[in-house]
Amino acid sequence: MELFTTNNVWMMICTALVFFMHLGFSFLEIGLTRQKNTINILFKNMFIICIGLILYSLFGFNLMYPGFDKEALGILGFSGFGLNSPITETGSLDLSYNTGYTYWTDFLFQGMFAATAATIVSGAVAERIKLGSFMIFTIIYVGLIYPIVGSWKWGGGFLDSMGFYDFAGSSLVHSVGGWAALVAVYLLGPRIGKFTSEGKPMVIPGHSITLAAAGVLILWLGWFGFNGGSVLSADPATTSLTLVTTCIAAATGGLSSFLVSTAIYKNYDLTMFLNGILGGLVAITAGADQMSPMDAIMVGVIAGTLIVFGISLIDRLTLDDPVGAIAVHLICGIWGTLAVGIFGKMAGLHQFFVQLIGIVIIGVFCLLTSFFILFSIKKLSGIRVSEQEEIEGLDFHEHGMDAYPDFRINQH
Amino acid sequence: MELFTTNNVWMMICTALVFFMHLGFSFLEIGLTRQKNTINILFKNMFIICIGLILYSLFGFNLMYPGFDKEALGILGFSGFGLNSPITETGSLDLSYNTGYTYWTDFLFQGMFAATAATIVSGAVAERIKLGSFMIFTIIYVGLIYPIVGSWKWGGGFLDSMGFYDFAGSSLVHSVGGWAALVAVYLLGPRIGKFTSEGKPMVIPGHSITLAAAGVLILWLGWFGFNGGSVLSADPATTSLTLVTTCIAAATGGLSSFLVSTAIYKNYDLTMFLNGILGGLVAITAGADQMSPMDAIMVGVIAGTLIVFGISLIDRLTLDDPVGAIAVHLICGIWGTLAVGIFGKMAGLHQFFVQLIGIVIIGVFCLLTSFFILFSIKKLSGIRVSEQEEIEGLDFHEHGMDAYPDFRINQH
Amino acid sequence: MELFTTNNVWMMICTALVFFMHLGFSFLEIGLTRQKNTINILFKNMFIICIGLILYSLFGFNLMYPGFDKEALGILGFSGFGLNSPITETGSLDLSYNTGYTYWTDFLFQGMFAATAATIVSGAVAERIKLGSFMIFTIIYVGLIYPIVGSWKWGGGFLDSMGFYDFAGSSLVHSVGGWAALVAVYLLGPRIGKFTSEGKPMVIPGHSITLAAAGVLILWLGWFGFNGGSVLSADPATTSLTLVTTCIAAATGGLSSFLVSTAIYKNYDLTMFLNGILGGLVAITAGADQMSPMDAIMVGVIAGTLIVFGISLIDRLTLDDPVGAIAVHLICGIWGTLAVGIFGKMAGLHQFFVQLIGIVIIGVFCLLTSFFILFSIKKLSGIRVSEQEEIEGLDFHEHGMDAYPDFRINQH
Repeated sequence: MELFTTNNVWMMICTALVFFMHLGFSFLEIGLTRQKNTINILFKNMFIICIGLILYSLFGFNLMYPGFDKEALGILGFSGFGLNSPITETGSLDLSYNTGYTYWTDFLFQGMFAATAATIVSGAVAERIKLGSFMIFTIIYVGLIYPIVGSWKWGGGFLDSMGFYDFAGSSLVHSVGGWAALVAVYLLGPRIGKFTSEGKPMVIPGHSITLAAAGVLILWLGWFGFNGGSVLSADPATTSLTLVTTCIAAATGGLSSFLVSTAIYKNYDLTMFLNGILGGLVAITAGADQMSPMDAIMVGVIAGTLIVFGISLIDRLTLDDPVGAIAVHLICGIWGTLAVGIFGKMAGLHQFFVQLIGIVIIGVFCLLTSFFILFSIKKLSGIRVSEQEEIEGLDFHEHGMDAYPDFRINQH
Repeated sequence: MELFTTNNVWMMICTALVFFMHLGFSFLEIGLTRQKNTINILFKNMFIICIGLILYSLFGFNLMYPGFDKEALGILGFSGFGLNSPITETGSLDLSYNTGYTYWTDFLFQGMFAATAATIVSGAVAERIKLGSFMIFTIIYVGLIYPIVGSWKWGGGFLDSMGFYDFAGSSLVHSVGGWAALVAVYLLGPRIGKFTSEGKPMVIPGHSITLAAAGVLILWLGWFGFNGGSVLSADPATTSLTLVTTCIAAATGGLSSFLVSTAIYKNYDLTMFLNGILGGLVAITAGADQMSPMDAIMVGVIAGTLIVFGISLIDRLTLDDPVGAIAVHLICGIWGTLAVGIFGKMAGLHQFFVQLIGIVIIGVFCLLTSFFILFSIKKLSGIRVSEQEEIEGLDFHEHGMDAYPDFRINQH
Repeated sequence: MELFTTNNVWMMICTALVFFMHLGFSFLEIGLTRQKNTINILFKNMFIICIGLILYSLFGFNLMYPGFDKEALGILGFSGFGLNSPITETGSLDLSYNTGYTYWTDFLFQGMFAATAATIVSGAVAERIKLGSFMIFTIIYVGLIYPIVGSWKWGGGFLDSMGFYDFAGSSLVHSVGGWAALVAVYLLGPRIGKFTSEGKPMVIPGHSITLAAAGVLILWLGWFGFNGGSVLSADPATTSLTLVTTCIAAATGGLSSFLVSTAIYKNYDLTMFLNGILGGLVAITAGADQMSPMDAIMVGVIAGTLIVFGISLIDRLTLDDPVGAIAVHLICGIWGTLAVGIFGKMAGLHQFFVQLIGIVIIGVFCLLTSFFILFSIKKLSGIRVSEQEEIEGLDFHEHGMDAYPDFRINQH
């Protein structure tokens, strides 16, 4: 009982930290985009948090943890609508549900994860997607696709039976969001002015690097809960090792992005440094409990390097991802999932291939489903705002508001 | 001892989260008001935190937890000045003081709550109250009125004997602040330009919706501690259920404000969404431990709806509440207190009336005392700044500073 | 085992809170400086966090906790490169390493402290130091000097044997940073425009008091972990007392700075209020576990007063410290260390002199080493940017970026 209470306290704190990541995502996204779309992005993010949690309580949680039969294939299951808390004979909450925490904690921790997948997409499609269309996409993707993929591993489905490992979601959360971001960016097309007629990428600067940097530090803080809580108990050895590998990968991810980008572009690029930190965090997420600090250094160094080349690659493909979400969440998510087969306790050729197969299956499923959803919405109601709206800003057109209406500058 | 330590850890973390709400309140308040009064608002908030804590340590804590005699009426008691920690015979802190946490934790957790009541008023009176007068009001209201009301329920006074229920303070914290906000707004009058000569409300836009949105997310995070800590132990079943109902009411509060306001005003209004989240949080606070998730959905949906109509009502009464504090804290505080008698484990006609009686008693007391305090200050030294000061900004006149003195904009 | 788990949870949470202080430091520093150097400051801070953690994992941790021989003098020791986690015979983490937490938690908590020393310097040298030179200084100071000084007390070295007491680092962290800040400010010289040709100090306003105030509240939150975690267990009596003294000293520090500065300058100066809070926090840090709340009030009141006179003194010495780091971290750090001999359980003439000797030894060592490092860098590659770069801003010259490139103001 004492240990149960402690485990539950730890999980509740981690839940709060994962919730707080939404402020980090919001700051990062509005910092790296133009002022005229700030309200729109904040509105999207508030919507994602709220609807994500409600859908997850209505059916997502039960899609993700369907209680698969042992004989079943483990692809799709459902344990009913609503939150059905296990009750003991005396009518109180059945604490034997889990050795680590209560049913309610379980739901809330997983519910906070659910919204994250849509938030990743939000960044990539910023400044040009129709708000209504994005909301419909979010409802379907967070409500159905995310929990189905999650059930394959964390719900005890076929990826789990296969031996696929993803500790806290390099694939199950970050790549799931990343694949949809890739599809959405492709279907939407680039923002006006992002590429010259020859396809040369132009810089469209954001409106507050201060907010972007604050967002990254808040996300790093949130990752204490994202990875620390994924231990699913307060087990001292595993939780504390996980926090160490998480922080070390973040640090080396940032440093390597900084060094590589400075070597190439002869410029101390803060945005690259920030995305390197995030890349390191995403990459360590699949194996944070399986790595030594030295392994984490390697995972982070490679993630930081991938960020620099990845962002450049996305540009060269004339894909427009305003915040670098694809490089951070998809590329580093894949890297981190593979890294479980290369570094740490589980390293081995067999594991490497299992990881690869998992990545491919998740990728194909997410590409197909997100394409189908977004393409359908595009045909039915359109996904992109008008040229006039894009130029004048979504805040004015969709919200009739300005984010900084009374901000005045002194004349010196 | 193990359990005691865990309980105490949980309570300390919740204390830290409630403390952090002050950043949320600050961001919300300065975001929704004009730049020229930013320093003034930050100054007020810093003052509230600091003086609130000190007054609570000198006498507030002992007013609120007076140790009423069982035979006494339980209206007013006092257990002496200063913090008198219980000491065992061997000279160490007496842990038998409480099964859940130490005397020090108890003080600090409750002390963090105390300052909140004044912060609520701060938002409603922003941009026109005299700093000195507000400081005097804060000292009396936080130092005396808040702990006296608190003693009636949480200190074991007559409301507690009556069966009145307020888990974490929909009434005891939020309405106590809300009633004073109502009185203060009435006595102060509206800001210049808020109403036309025909009484038609005008929009006075704030200076950063980004800060306002960040404030709401920080407040939501803080509510993990506000409600989670009000369990007064780390009891797994109750704490985790409380966090679930809290988050669900916040989410449905936001969504319902968004949907209702969009239906009425044909506009995606982010401020309404944000206030809906806060309304849901305030409303669930009275019964967060007594509700099922489905109850919490209902409490939130109604709170979000009340926000839209409440803000409109305040406007029509030609009351000027720049941040919507009255709708959020008073209206939703009352709603949440009543909801304890309508939804959840305690629902019942008797309980409903007990809740109603409690609301009325608290309301009358707070209206009278805050009117007496503010009216006296008004007569003695005035409560409103001069017209020139209001137009030119309180920052320049009271502080000789500008909040963004070196903010420059590039000429494109 | 239950208690061990709880202790470890508490320490991990405190680690997260100390990490979050870096956002507080960043906000404070960029808020109080000019917009044209924002990117540069954020870059420095990101670098400090990342390199600090990596260096600490490679050798800093083992320099600071060298496992001194009992007979040795305890000045310099080293227990080898890298993180060498203690392993039991069965191959799992040896939990008997410590009664309070795991080896990994120990490393991470201490690692988060390490970066703080350089962050303090960062504020003082802002707006004029060469980025490359600052990075070299950081590597040496955080990598070598900080852990060596730390080993003298927390690593069981000669200051510890002597009876010197510094609970959470008024001297070992804050003064260590403060002394280097003093040397750096002296060697760098003031910013262009800070002093008239007659040496009269001018105000160079920062670009966002909002960020500065947010930074202070985040730092206060972080101090829950900084001091609370320095108990090195979740012991209920000590941790909760520590949080109470910490918060009370912060509150009285702020209030006394506010009152003293208002009395002298006839002005409600928010920056003074903010620095007073920080001064109170720094001062209580040395003896937070040894003080009663009444002692904490005295420590805070004196710290707040010292801030007002200290900032004025630095100005009169024509030293240019843009954020007040020397007054906050050095002067209040010294005050707090002395206060251990004046107030609280350890008060006494002998202890006072031991504290004084410790302060002098640390001061001489930090002054000499930081002078040697910075003077060498100055001779080798220079430490100050060119006049043109300083005037046009470091963001443009070192980073080719602007912090708010798309921030636009509506024309009213």
